[in-house]
Amino acid sequence: MTSPAPSPATGLVGRANFPHRHLLGIASLAPHEIRFLLDEAEQWAILNRTATRKHDDRLAGLTQMNAFFEASTRTLLSFEVAGKRLGADVVNMHASQSSVKKGETLIDTAVTLNSMRADVMVIRHMSSGAVQLIADKVDCPVLNAGDGRHEHPTQALLDALTIRRRKGGHEGLIVTICGDILHSRVARSNMLCLTALGAQVRVCAPPTLMPAAVERYRVTPFSDFNAALDGADVVMMLRLQNERMDGGFIPSAREFSLLYGLTPERLKRAKPDAIVMHPGPMNRGVEILSGVADDPDRSAITEQVEMGVAVRMACLDVLTRGDRGVAGWA
Amino acid sequence: MTSPAPSPATGLVGRANFPHRHLLGIASLAPHEIRFLLDEAEQWAILNRTATRKHDDRLAGLTQMNAFFEASTRTLLSFEVAGKRLGADVVNMHASQSSVKKGETLIDTAVTLNSMRADVMVIRHMSSGAVQLIADKVDCPVLNAGDGRHEHPTQALLDALTIRRRKGGHEGLIVTICGDILHSRVARSNMLCLTALGAQVRVCAPPTLMPAAVERYRVTPFSDFNAALDGADVVMMLRLQNERMDGGFIPSAREFSLLYGLTPERLKRAKPDAIVMHPGPMNRGVEILSGVADDPDRSAITEQVEMGVAVRMACLDVLTRGDRGVAGWA
Amino acid sequence: MTSPAPSPATGLVGRANFPHRHLLGIASLAPHEIRFLLDEAEQWAILNRTATRKHDDRLAGLTQMNAFFEASTRTLLSFEVAGKRLGADVVNMHASQSSVKKGETLIDTAVTLNSMRADVMVIRHMSSGAVQLIADKVDCPVLNAGDGRHEHPTQALLDALTIRRRKGGHEGLIVTICGDILHSRVARSNMLCLTALGAQVRVCAPPTLMPAAVERYRVTPFSDFNAALDGADVVMMLRLQNERMDGGFIPSAREFSLLYGLTPERLKRAKPDAIVMHPGPMNRGVEILSGVADDPDRSAITEQVEMGVAVRMACLDVLTRGDRGVAGWA
Repeated sequence: MTSPAPSPATGLVGRANFPHRHLLGIASLAPHEIRFLLDEAEQWAILNRTATRKHDDRLAGLTQMNAFFEASTRTLLSFEVAGKRLGADVVNMHASQSSVKKGETLIDTAVTLNSMRADVMVIRHMSSGAVQLIADKVDCPVLNAGDGRHEHPTQALLDALTIRRRKGGHEGLIVTICGDILHSRVARSNMLCLTALGAQVRVCAPPTLMPAAVERYRVTPFSDFNAALDGADVVMMLRLQNERMDGGFIPSAREFSLLYGLTPERLKRAKPDAIVMHPGPMNRGVEILSGVADDPDRSAITEQVEMGVAVRMACLDVLTRGDRGVAGWA
Repeated sequence: MTSPAPSPATGLVGRANFPHRHLLGIASLAPHEIRFLLDEAEQWAILNRTATRKHDDRLAGLTQMNAFFEASTRTLLSFEVAGKRLGADVVNMHASQSSVKKGETLIDTAVTLNSMRADVMVIRHMSSGAVQLIADKVDCPVLNAGDGRHEHPTQALLDALTIRRRKGGHEGLIVTICGDILHSRVARSNMLCLTALGAQVRVCAPPTLMPAAVERYRVTPFSDFNAALDGADVVMMLRLQNERMDGGFIPSAREFSLLYGLTPERLKRAKPDAIVMHPGPMNRGVEILSGVADDPDRSAITEQVEMGVAVRMACLDVLTRGDRGVAGWA
Repeated sequence: MTSPAPSPATGLVGRANFPHRHLLGIASLAPHEIRFLLDEAEQWAILNRTATRKHDDRLAGLTQMNAFFEASTRTLLSFEVAGKRLGADVVNMHASQSSVKKGETLIDTAVTLNSMRADVMVIRHMSSGAVQLIADKVDCPVLNAGDGRHEHPTQALLDALTIRRRKGGHEGLIVTICGDILHSRVARSNMLCLTALGAQVRVCAPPTLMPAAVERYRVTPFSDFNAALDGADVVMMLRLQNERMDGGFIPSAREFSLLYGLTPERLKRAKPDAIVMHPGPMNRGVEILSGVADDPDRSAITEQVEMGVAVRMACLDVLTRGDRGVAGWA
């Protein structure tokens, strides 16, 4: 991106558009702040597609630390690629290598990373709220890459950007999110993000996998998948989060698939131009059938991954602007 | 390499010399294409030895993804070093971190990496043909870093380059490859490469570790190691691939060593100036004795490792030329 | 650091101040050589704190290989951050990925890394002396990042730098090191370093965790923690190295804590302005209580981590000067 491609111009406007130190969740963002991040990401998305050389120097000399206390492939890779394309020095800390195993506390680990003078930290943790705890202790911006059942804000942003690219906007769209709503931080961040942007959000799950009083998120709950699909513009399927089901009822893959698997037939209940999304990794034959996942007209799944890098570039750029002296952060 | 050292000039000739999108195996290469890659690698080898600063910017702004579904140290490190010396943004995906564990299919993983806009992928996989499957699905050049029992083309290229440096060429040389020929992709790629370059290749293994109808590779099979060594110019020893022997006869290390271990005495049957090679990691005392492995006049083992980086730099450079706009790729 | 910040000027003086090829231990360093490294590190420490962009190009085009045969988080991260800030191409080799698992010898692994033309190697190994073995076999400077019970020189240097920043120097200071002295390379390197710099060093441990004839290090042994603390300027607490206790008496965490845990009350025996150090990771409630660890006036623990990066930058820079042609290395 260096020489041939223009840099996103909104960067000059600086942190005035985004007066947050951290990105811990969608819950704390105003709709115009979400849109600002999507606008920034859109420009990176274009550059990622069109530039021969996908490189920018704005994070040169900055140290990005990815501390993943919970295993991840795609999210870690996505943040790593995003940071490197912006010129940052990127280092990864995997839980499996971590001093946590020697009995160190989470806070001590975070303080250690901070003492190495990180300029931005990307944290994933299996416990809800852990990322906030870390953000309170460090001197640099913290990006939440998923914490327990709480939030996964960059996933919601990349989903919102994908929807906007495919549908032109969010206002008035019917978005059906189906799967394990109870354990899913992706569902939670998406409910917050999409309702803030004006979409009508339906959530669909077996009763045992539906959060209590889910209406507080201004969404409509369904247990009948067919009814939830009726007239939908966007169908977002989630993976069963078996690893987060501590006790409680766990549906078998087979019975879940029968009731909540997205087949080409079921998809006909949605709008004719409805798109299908999935945060990945997919369990084909369980929550989604290959006939749907691989339909080039309907599936937006690969575009989601692509937008993931763009959204993370935007977030890394915007959050470090103040410290880089691009524009004052209040 | 930047300022003081000259860049390989053949780079200007572009992809006309190598009209392949991917490097999946030696089988699809013509002899002049193999020689072209060796010529390119030779120039990197010189620079790696002589340049104070081993850096070139030709892959700057390009994203190289190393997706290793099978564990590896030296091959992964070699590709990582090669890419970084060329200025690429290099990211590694280890199988152990992979979404494959969450049930994702190989193709979905590949499509995910592709969606992040990789510019070149380096793939290792335990299944023969898996790298071809991935190459069919992605938008960037794919380099095979070893797939099952199929091929390991950069290993064969680095072996060919090492031989050329030590012997001045390949035409008419007698090369004896000894070990587990049946399970070895290294043996397979080397048989294809060395016969294409005009060498006379002998393969030597116990009958249970020799492929059926190995003569189709235009090589001569031996089960008697002494006979196979007679008058050889190059002796290439292979490791027992215990991890790939599913059932079937597995020789003990001790009996294998007695019959097929390369000792200084046995080596006397080869030409007086014969060189000894091993792709590593070596099992000293099994297929090769330390008196041979550490003989500075005979062993070319460390030079093989050195040529590995040079060959991978050449392959990464050549395969990305079209996309970088250096020269048209048809 | 590039544009706005000045580079450490002493760099121009070159290797005359440090005529060592490797950094294997404190034992081989003269006091003025230790002070030279601390002076260099001090300048990096200032830049790490003050520069907007923490980047320098002096190691650009050089390949730094971190080969960690023993797991580590903070030390590996610290060396990785240090190398990247100096512009090196940094690659990591973890033991878990290593060919060592396929039966390769340590020397063969080292020779392999060397053949890839590493410009500097950072080695951690569970066996005392392993790093020296490697240094004898390779063509580039080797930095010991901890070998068995032998030495951990950069830890001692960062501790000495932290003490100098807090206390103005080392001469005449009373430093009490408490914990598992017997198994600790940190204790050993610190005894050597601090006595060389003129401090009075006390070591305190239960008799079973005290080395025989520890007085040869010119330190005073104690088994009574209260007595060892009396009038101390610096209190350095060590972790129980359970993983290195092969047989022999292992104190329980509870009894160890009662006798040798540093509490706010016990700390009152030290000087009123005494500082507390710990190489981390801490076991809070065992060797150190949170009231001490988190006391901003007394605890220098986060500064130790910070100085770690600065010390490693200095060592990487100084050791590679000869090969970079900055100044002749004899």
